[in-house]
Amino acid sequence: MMRNHGGDVYSYENEHKVRPLDFSVNINPLGMPKGVKKVLRDSVELFSSYPDMHCTRLREALSAYEKVPPEYLACGNGAADLIYRLVAAEKPEHALLLAPTFSEYELALRSTGCIVHRHALSEDRDFIPGNDILGKIKGMDMLFLCNPNNPTGALIDPGLLTEIAGSCKEAGCTLVIDECFIDLTDAPEQYSFKPFLAANKHVVLLKAFTKTFALAGLRLGYCLTANTGLLDRIDAASQPWNVSVPAQLAGVEALRDGSYLERARAVIAKEKSFLEKVFRKHGFRVFDTRTNYMLVRTDGKTDLYDALYAKGILVRKCGNFPGLDGSYFRIAIRRHADNARMAAALKEICLPTPGN
Amino acid sequence: MMRNHGGDVYSYENEHKVRPLDFSVNINPLGMPKGVKKVLRDSVELFSSYPDMHCTRLREALSAYEKVPPEYLACGNGAADLIYRLVAAEKPEHALLLAPTFSEYELALRSTGCIVHRHALSEDRDFIPGNDILGKIKGMDMLFLCNPNNPTGALIDPGLLTEIAGSCKEAGCTLVIDECFIDLTDAPEQYSFKPFLAANKHVVLLKAFTKTFALAGLRLGYCLTANTGLLDRIDAASQPWNVSVPAQLAGVEALRDGSYLERARAVIAKEKSFLEKVFRKHGFRVFDTRTNYMLVRTDGKTDLYDALYAKGILVRKCGNFPGLDGSYFRIAIRRHADNARMAAALKEICLPTPGN
Repeated sequence: MMRNHGGDVYSYENEHKVRPLDFSVNINPLGMPKGVKKVLRDSVELFSSYPDMHCTRLREALSAYEKVPPEYLACGNGAADLIYRLVAAEKPEHALLLAPTFSEYELALRSTGCIVHRHALSEDRDFIPGNDILGKIKGMDMLFLCNPNNPTGALIDPGLLTEIAGSCKEAGCTLVIDECFIDLTDAPEQYSFKPFLAANKHVVLLKAFTKTFALAGLRLGYCLTANTGLLDRIDAASQPWNVSVPAQLAGVEALRDGSYLERARAVIAKEKSFLEKVFRKHGFRVFDTRTNYMLVRTDGKTDLYDALYAKGILVRKCGNFPGLDGSYFRIAIRRHADNARMAAALKEICLPTPGN
Repeated sequence: MMRNHGGDVYSYENEHKVRPLDFSVNINPLGMPKGVKKVLRDSVELFSSYPDMHCTRLREALSAYEKVPPEYLACGNGAADLIYRLVAAEKPEHALLLAPTFSEYELALRSTGCIVHRHALSEDRDFIPGNDILGKIKGMDMLFLCNPNNPTGALIDPGLLTEIAGSCKEAGCTLVIDECFIDLTDAPEQYSFKPFLAANKHVVLLKAFTKTFALAGLRLGYCLTANTGLLDRIDAASQPWNVSVPAQLAGVEALRDGSYLERARAVIAKEKSFLEKVFRKHGFRVFDTRTNYMLVRTDGKTDLYDALYAKGILVRKCGNFPGLDGSYFRIAIRRHADNARMAAALKEICLPTPGN
C-alpha cells in the first residue's frame, strides 16, 4: 500500500546526508518540553522492563489534566494506533468521512472491509463543515470528524457539532472526534466535545501527545469516552503492552509543564499572521486556520514542493487528499527563524522571471 | 478481559514503593547492551520527529544479522503487536495452538472471532511436542508454535518441525513459529526454521528484541517470511508509525554488539545448572529447558508465589496456561547474585517446620 504523509525526513536524509527543514509535519513549534528530555535521559535503565499494561500513572495524570475519570481513558501507540483498534473493536460496515480529511481513517476502515462514504466540503465555504452533513448520517455505523480538520485547520461550529452528535445517537452511529490538534488552537475549551462525553456514550475523542507536546517519535495517543465497554473492546483488539516505557514516562512529565501550551499558542498566533502574510504576498490563496498548520493553494504554475525541496525545505503535498489536487499544500507553523527561512525561500522562488 | 502475564512489577511497586526482584519475566539476564543505553541518552532530541515508517536502517541491519533479504522483514511494536496484525491480515477461521503455550496467540485469534483448537502436550513427555500433532493440522488455517515453547523452554525436534511445515503446506495452513527465545538457547542454528523460509512461503517466524536484547520497555519485534504479499497485508493492518524512534535506534545499535549474545548464553548455561539444582534440592520437579527460563512444579503444599512475594521476589504463576494448574511456576534464569538470593529465599521457605 502506498501511504503519503508528511514528516518523511528520512528519505531526504538518506539522499542528502542532512535533515531538511520540515514544514510537512504539524507538531508543536516549541519542540519537546525540556523536562521530558531530562526524564528520558535519566530513565534509560527502566527501558528494559515491560511497560505497565494499564498505564496507571499516565492515566492518573491524564485524568487530572483532562478532568475526566480515569475509566474514560485508554492509551495507545500514538492516536493512529487507536484509530485502527477502534475500527477493529467496532467493525463498522458503513462509515462517513469528510473530504478532505486525515487519510488514516479511510485506511483503517478499509483494512476491515468497511464501505467508506464521503461528505465533500466546499472550497467556497473554506472547507468548513456545514449542516448539510446532517442528512448523511442515517445508515452509518461510524463517523469520523477531525476538529480542527487536517489539512485545513478549520474548526466545527459547536452548535453544529451538538446537532451532529444528536443525529449520530439517533442513527446508532459511533461518532469519533479527532481532537489531536485542538489544544494548539486558540480556543480549545470552546470547541472541544469533552464536556458532553458523559451524556453521549456513542462519542469517542482522540487526542495525542505526538503533536501537542512534540513527541511524535515516542508514539503516544489516547482516547476519551464514557463508553467503558468500548474501551474494553479496544483493549482486547491489541497486545497489552502497546505503550512503551519511555512514552509513559514522557507523557506524565509533559503534563507537569503548566506554561508550555500557553507559550506554544502565543508563538503559533504570532507566526500564523507572519506566514499568512508571506504566502498571500506571493499570490497564494491561504485558507483560514485556527491551529498550527495552514492549507495554501498555488496558481498551479509554481511547483511549490519541488522548488522548496531544492532549498532543503519539506512541505506537505495535498494531492492525495480526496477533494484536493496538486495545487494544494499544507504548511506547518514553526518558530520565527524557520518561518523567516521559508519567507526568504519563497521570495527567491516567486521572483518574476525577466520578460514577465 | 483479564490478562495474566509476568513482568507486572508496577502493581508491586505501587504497593511497596520499591521494585521487586523479578523472576516472572524472561528477558536476557545481561540487561540492555551498554551501547544501546548510550545511544538512547544521546539521541533524545530525535524523539520529537515521526519515526521512519519503513524502518529502513533497522531492516538493513536486521537483514545482515539474520542473513535474509530485507524484503522478508517487517518490524512491529514488539512481537506481540505482530501477532495481532498477522491475525488481522490472515483472518483465520480455525487455528491450532499447543497447550500449554504463550497466551496472546489465543487472545489475538479470539479478537477476530477465530475458533481455537488445542493440541495438549503431555507432562509425561516433558511437554515436548511429538508427531501426534501431525494428524491435527488438516482443516486449520493457522498454527502457532512457540520454539522454544513458553513456559517450558523445550525445543521442537527439527525433523518433526519439517514434517509439521509439510503438513501445513498441504493443508493450506499458515505456520507461525515464534522464535522469540531461540537466540538465547544453546543451539539457535540447529533449531531455527530460518534456512527453510524461501521454500516455505506459508511459514512466518516471529522474533523480538524484547527478550533477546532486554529491550522490553521499548517494544521492538519483527517477523520473517518469504511471503511478501502477507507482509503487505500485515502492513495495511495497522498505522504506518508502529515502531518508535528510540526502538529503531536501539535495534540498530543492539545488533552491533557482536559478543553480547555469546556472553548471555554462557551466563544462562551456568546459572541454569545452579537454579535447577537449587529447585530440585527442595523437592520441586524441574522440567528440562533449553533457554533462559524454566518450568517448575511444587508438591502443591507450598504456595511458592505468595511465599516468594513476601520476600520481594516475583515468579510467574502458570495456573492460567491451558494444560497447567496452580502447582506450576515459571522461573527466569537471572545473573548469579539474583539467583543466589532466590536460593536463600527458597531455603527459608522450604525449611521443615518443627514437628514435620
